[in-house]
Amino acid sequence: MASGDASEQSGNGRATRAKRVPRAVREQQMLDAAVAVFAERGFHQSSMDTIATASGISKPMLYLYYGSKDELFGAILDRESQRFLEAASQGSSPDFTARETLERTLAAVLDFVAGHRDAWRVLVREGSSVGEFADQIARRRARLVELTADLLRAGTKEPEQDFDLMAVALVGAGEAVANRVAEGDLDPARAVEVLTGLAWRGLSGGPRQTD
Amino acid sequence: MASGDASEQSGNGRATRAKRVPRAVREQQMLDAAVAVFAERGFHQSSMDTIATASGISKPMLYLYYGSKDELFGAILDRESQRFLEAASQGSSPDFTARETLERTLAAVLDFVAGHRDAWRVLVREGSSVGEFADQIARRRARLVELTADLLRAGTKEPEQDFDLMAVALVGAGEAVANRVAEGDLDPARAVEVLTGLAWRGLSGGPRQTD
Repeated sequence: MASGDASEQSGNGRATRAKRVPRAVREQQMLDAAVAVFAERGFHQSSMDTIATASGISKPMLYLYYGSKDELFGAILDRESQRFLEAASQGSSPDFTARETLERTLAAVLDFVAGHRDAWRVLVREGSSVGEFADQIARRRARLVELTADLLRAGTKEPEQDFDLMAVALVGAGEAVANRVAEGDLDPARAVEVLTGLAWRGLSGGPRQTD
Repeated sequence: MASGDASEQSGNGRATRAKRVPRAVREQQMLDAAVAVFAERGFHQSSMDTIATASGISKPMLYLYYGSKDELFGAILDRESQRFLEAASQGSSPDFTARETLERTLAAVLDFVAGHRDAWRVLVREGSSVGEFADQIARRRARLVELTADLLRAGTKEPEQDFDLMAVALVGAGEAVANRVAEGDLDPARAVEVLTGLAWRGLSGGPRQTD
């Protein structure tokens, strides 16, 4: 294991090409393996040894890329947050009506969660229980609330509403439903249908045709 | 401190009456002190020593009542969950319309959180980060979702809706807003007004007069 890894530092020599995995690819492999290990064992019960083995690399190499378990977790947090925001942003466009934006954003978010269940569970469950990361996750959630409030503001003709508070409620609702999707006991498409109806028309059942 | 405590086990002798605090009162004092310490320091950074000092009793006495920090935390979880459910249930009655039930339940919940901010923060923030309690809190949240689904089912003439999923969303929204109230940066009465409007009429703004 160590002999292949040792060549990692030696540049682009042709002799090592067959064994070389590009740095960017290897980084993603390590993060993927770490997500799976954290999801199965929890952050505190996961060791760098286990993650190295799951990545198919040596422990020194893992430490060379990510200096500590905390740094590795932080890299997962960065990658998954970035992916999440990219996915969520697919749901909004100036061409969409407000109701379309709601439905498409919900679909984009819940499909993402269904496709990254381990990562979602690690971030929400483990991330919230590790002090330093809990603060980071809280800041990213706050940013998501801001973006949601901006969408609400842009989508209405009634500018006097408390969009910030409405966004807190909507993001909270979305997160709770996403947690169910991540646990695997809820179909994303069904959730999008029910949630869009609830968020758009409310419990009173409002006007069905209003867009 | 220890001399008064020693009489605690000796029954109702008149000689000790002036110094005696009834067991039930003392238990509540210890829980109150523990909530304040956990809220300020976090669960892991809180010691039984600090909690005993904050309660005004000896550490051996604290251990006599609550055998461990975990047991003490469990007692807080039980007490606050019970209080929370009692408060929340004040919002529903067969005499209320569905909209009144929504508004009154929200008001009851958010007023409770505003009056028990330390306890709410301890349970949601600390409880979710301590393995054993995270499971308990998840079970109590699931029970709250069931109760909410029952309320929704009772309050509508359209029996074919997915009340369980709607309840997940509503409880998630409520929890997110309650967290803001617990942080002290949101007025409960204002939150009740905005949330009732959002949940009842939806983002489309539905019919304002429908009850």
